[in-house]
Amino acid sequence: MDMDRLKRQIDFIVEIDKLKHIFRRTLLMDMSRNENDAEHSWHLAVMAILLKEYAAQEVDLEKVIKMVLVHDLVEIDAGDTFCYDEKANLDKRERELCAAERIFNILPPDQAAEIRALWDEFEECSTPEALFAASLDRLQPLLHNYHTKGHTWKGGVTSSRVYDRMAKVREGAPELWALVESIVRDSIEKGYLKE
Amino acid sequence: MDMDRLKRQIDFIVEIDKLKHIFRRTLLMDMSRNENDAEHSWHLAVMAILLKEYAAQEVDLEKVIKMVLVHDLVEIDAGDTFCYDEKANLDKRERELCAAERIFNILPPDQAAEIRALWDEFEECSTPEALFAASLDRLQPLLHNYHTKGHTWKGGVTSSRVYDRMAKVREGAPELWALVESIVRDSIEKGYLKE
Repeated sequence: MDMDRLKRQIDFIVEIDKLKHIFRRTLLMDMSRNENDAEHSWHLAVMAILLKEYAAQEVDLEKVIKMVLVHDLVEIDAGDTFCYDEKANLDKRERELCAAERIFNILPPDQAAEIRALWDEFEECSTPEALFAASLDRLQPLLHNYHTKGHTWKGGVTSSRVYDRMAKVREGAPELWALVESIVRDSIEKGYLKE
Repeated sequence: MDMDRLKRQIDFIVEIDKLKHIFRRTLLMDMSRNENDAEHSWHLAVMAILLKEYAAQEVDLEKVIKMVLVHDLVEIDAGDTFCYDEKANLDKRERELCAAERIFNILPPDQAAEIRALWDEFEECSTPEALFAASLDRLQPLLHNYHTKGHTWKGGVTSSRVYDRMAKVREGAPELWALVESIVRDSIEKGYLKE
């Protein structure tokens, strides 16, 4: 039993409790409060299980789930960057790279490398698993926005920007594109989103 | 494309947002508020990835992760039952069975059956995967209790009751039993837990 190894694993498990304090722009479906990153990551993982059949290519589900579970850990240090905030997105990458260095390296080196590889793959977004994970990461907030009367679209986000943001779904889960279109159309009709 | 199937999947994904409102007795590590079931389930899933090497037997990690992701969904209807509340535990099973019927059957039948089978396996707690999942479900609140000065032990929970509650760790992840003992001993020394 390598006690230093176990200590690093437990230290990491304690550290990542902080993800429960990182709040997103998205509201919970009942509009009572903002969602946090831990809840969001859990929701994506369950969605991966249920929507796997719509992935563009055969995916390794275990890898997709691992990827969505850890994809936001860097936000413990870097904070949540609103996807439609162009200014904040300029230094997002730099802030998140620093965070990855500090947070993942709490783990023993082999596990730090595994989590880093999952995060890198998610960020590069070119494998079938990463494209499917990214599709879920776009769809989940779309559902939340629809059920909260377009909450995060209120600052002037238009349907063309939403379609741009949703583009990954076409690559990662093309069968779900019709769902995206119907939600966007209905959101425009209901006045949640500007055309 | 089976639109009824997709509708049921999306309805379920929207329904389970409610897990983010089910609060546990456990506090977050910084003691700022209670933890909810979605956050707890996410935390267990990450722990499964990192602590897999300590499982008593070789486990199918994908199954363990799926199991911990869905193990508390029934609490959307049945509520969180405090593990040391003997009275509330009397009808827990009945309340949770009703909840499983309603919630899982929002899904298409094949997926309802898959989630039900995962939940049943977790509840029966006899396969290596279920025993390892149960071990994580014991260890995570132990870590939270230790870091929150024994918060959920304050109503007169003693170390022997904690050891009873932790017994599954001996079966599911025996190498981690020394960790349990050291946390319990240290909690007694620090005055967080009565002997």
